[in-house]
Amino acid sequence: MKETKLCHSIEDAIRACGLRDGMTVDFNHHLRDGDYVIPMVMNAIGKLGIKDIKVFSAGIFNGMMNRGLTDLIHQGVITSTEVTGNSSILGGMISRGELPKVCRFHTHGGRARTIVEEDLHIDVCFVAAPTADCMGNCNGVEGPNAFGSIGYSMSSSRYADKTVVITDNLVPYPLQRTSIDESVVDYVVQVDAIGDPNGIATGIAKPTKDPLALIIAEYASKTIEFSGLLKDGFSYQAGAGGPSIATTRYLSEIMKRKKVHGSFILGGVTGTSVDLLEEGLFDTIMDVQCFDRKAAASLRDDPRHREISDACYAMRGGPNGNRSCAVDSLDVVVLGALEIDLDFNCNLVVNSSGLITGGAGGHTDTAEGSKMSMIVAPLRRTRYPTVVKKCTSITTPGKDVDVLITEYGISVNPKNQELALRLKDAGLKVVSIEELQALAESMTGIPDEVRFGDRLVAEVIGRNGEVIDRVYNILE
Amino acid sequence: MKETKLCHSIEDAIRACGLRDGMTVDFNHHLRDGDYVIPMVMNAIGKLGIKDIKVFSAGIFNGMMNRGLTDLIHQGVITSTEVTGNSSILGGMISRGELPKVCRFHTHGGRARTIVEEDLHIDVCFVAAPTADCMGNCNGVEGPNAFGSIGYSMSSSRYADKTVVITDNLVPYPLQRTSIDESVVDYVVQVDAIGDPNGIATGIAKPTKDPLALIIAEYASKTIEFSGLLKDGFSYQAGAGGPSIATTRYLSEIMKRKKVHGSFILGGVTGTSVDLLEEGLFDTIMDVQCFDRKAAASLRDDPRHREISDACYAMRGGPNGNRSCAVDSLDVVVLGALEIDLDFNCNLVVNSSGLITGGAGGHTDTAEGSKMSMIVAPLRRTRYPTVVKKCTSITTPGKDVDVLITEYGISVNPKNQELALRLKDAGLKVVSIEELQALAESMTGIPDEVRFGDRLVAEVIGRNGEVIDRVYNILE
Repeated sequence: MKETKLCHSIEDAIRACGLRDGMTVDFNHHLRDGDYVIPMVMNAIGKLGIKDIKVFSAGIFNGMMNRGLTDLIHQGVITSTEVTGNSSILGGMISRGELPKVCRFHTHGGRARTIVEEDLHIDVCFVAAPTADCMGNCNGVEGPNAFGSIGYSMSSSRYADKTVVITDNLVPYPLQRTSIDESVVDYVVQVDAIGDPNGIATGIAKPTKDPLALIIAEYASKTIEFSGLLKDGFSYQAGAGGPSIATTRYLSEIMKRKKVHGSFILGGVTGTSVDLLEEGLFDTIMDVQCFDRKAAASLRDDPRHREISDACYAMRGGPNGNRSCAVDSLDVVVLGALEIDLDFNCNLVVNSSGLITGGAGGHTDTAEGSKMSMIVAPLRRTRYPTVVKKCTSITTPGKDVDVLITEYGISVNPKNQELALRLKDAGLKVVSIEELQALAESMTGIPDEVRFGDRLVAEVIGRNGEVIDRVYNILE
Repeated sequence: MKETKLCHSIEDAIRACGLRDGMTVDFNHHLRDGDYVIPMVMNAIGKLGIKDIKVFSAGIFNGMMNRGLTDLIHQGVITSTEVTGNSSILGGMISRGELPKVCRFHTHGGRARTIVEEDLHIDVCFVAAPTADCMGNCNGVEGPNAFGSIGYSMSSSRYADKTVVITDNLVPYPLQRTSIDESVVDYVVQVDAIGDPNGIATGIAKPTKDPLALIIAEYASKTIEFSGLLKDGFSYQAGAGGPSIATTRYLSEIMKRKKVHGSFILGGVTGTSVDLLEEGLFDTIMDVQCFDRKAAASLRDDPRHREISDACYAMRGGPNGNRSCAVDSLDVVVLGALEIDLDFNCNLVVNSSGLITGGAGGHTDTAEGSKMSMIVAPLRRTRYPTVVKKCTSITTPGKDVDVLITEYGISVNPKNQELALRLKDAGLKVVSIEELQALAESMTGIPDEVRFGDRLVAEVIGRNGEVIDRVYNILE
């Protein structure tokens, strides 16, 4: 009989876990730019004199970097990162070779597979938890800093050697609604605040009035309308960028007009997705991560809005690869990209000026799993073309991308002739990707070639663990 | 993208899993005597000519034996079993040495630990599921043969090489309420009926009018009342035997009278436990297994009634043993026993005539985890004493047993002097266990000594994997 797992401080929990030089620590990123837990833990690790830590996190954002991670990299406390997404500060440091070890970029499904199949050993998993009890039962939907789904800690908390729950809302045992249960938790730490939930929505677009985004969204929603996929039982995922959210809004109008009743929305969930559930256009939301407070509140209150694990979201695994995930049952996904090339390869990691700036997230997983993956993107961003001859770096292979939607027209991957015919028959403006690329180049000119050095700074890892691309240090 | 995991038949699923001679298959036992799935699968394995299978099941009941398992043992298809509980038919066959290999008896927590720490490798896990979709998302609470919590498939479905969901209620993807998700499932088979839910309650006592059971229950409820543990936040588990259920009913009256507000009920849940939740005496039920339809309906409809995994119920694990489970937070558990001896050791596996007849279930786990473990038992059963000098076999060590309640008085383990004083002060009839043993013997006479052979037929395994006792073949 054990009374409690409570530690007095994060330092105590780190000591109790036996964390030492060279180990790997895991985090969720559900509080995104508002997260205090990653900086708190990493600063405590630094204070204890521990060095050479690999940070394996679903995401690392600028807010976390500014709360101490930048310094900890300079001090050698953090020597590499493995993430599914990061922001410009960490990306720039990786690109400039400021981390001594090679960093890795995973897809969401690949991250889960890496954990479950133990390709990477997690020494300690730290779970930012908006509500927990003293034995570690926890959820993401209750408490002052509720962020919604806690999906990105579900696999790692189970497979890590040690798991520490960090909460600012400790409740009496037993917590009634439990997403991660005590059977995988070693220690619990109570802190003043795990984060600022206003930071969750950083980088998530508000409903846009940008005419360019609205043109793209109109083309995208019509592409869905005439794809042959929009029928009862339809399933859908969209990203959190302006054109994606606008596409979802237009789509909802089409569904109402055509009286199509959808099955499920998957994601990364925004308030816009919740609107579609509440309007009765879809039966279910499957939610691995909430992008805003409205989504988090819906997950808390609406039983049709279901929390899923990272593995259930996007992991393809098992000895016969037969263990499925929700993305494999998806009809349509609407995605963004930094660059897309003539082979429909997409780049999500390295921007056109050669700096690491993003990450795959669920891009590669959903593109492969869905029946139709759509890239929505403006033809150019300031002086850089989005449609290029060859991507600076490949994140999602072109074989998994079905169609590109720009403000100048729709380009269908030649592998998908039937879709091209359907869209042409519907009178949509279908153009070749070569035309789009030439048009983009005519607008921006040929950008200066980016010069990379010969030091490997990062690897882009595919859904099944394969190295898709290698990124070298930038020469500035 | 994979359309479906549906197989046409159980045989097809077995072939797809690559099941072959010498392998281990896992089952839940939630349908208990009404289960059709274990016989269906094992008969199919037999039909395919596969031999020498170890059946690793939470339980094996007489109904399953009569549906074919007895024959399959005779045919060499099943050569050993590892269970937490079984009934007389299988027990007798093991005792007579009819299984060629040594069988093992686990506790519920020990079974989960064996799975999670991979002491035993499960080749194929078959999940009897009252509702599932084509990708294997499933639950136990919906469908015509709903049995409630599906807790005993939660660990094995995750750690098995292959997992097959067998359902008689296939619903459109995605199943909204999911207890085991598609990320751990390889195949799905639809059958006419997974069982007869009327068989679930086999062996579960109805509210008793037996005066002897009521005397025991009254003593037991008063023991709880005066134990010092009955205060706000109290937590409780009781077995499904007549005296246990009667104890729960008396306890509810005491709680009302003393205005004690309990925290949680744990178990193996009966309709009686649900009554206490609905009367507002407890906040929460944590449920690994429903013993009747009322419990299953409550789990489906009442969010205060929470489903937990086998690991969360009773597994103590992790590299530092710090991964807890609900039994570790339990105040009081009320348990039965076949025999209890002068050292308070309990026997749940081998009856006094030397035949294997039961299993540990959660007995050992809850006895160790709880603050006060109570054995409720009549002093004798027909011509056999329950209180004996030395148990025929040890299942739960006496160090974890606090008090024995019989119709002739209450005997407190000498390790627990404070409890003895409290009960005496309250005027309860506290007697030594030696007195109870002598009294029992005076009633039954000294039973003939059971004669065992020298062939090891079964091992009783403790919560942490240690061999607690060895059982030899009976000489008849």
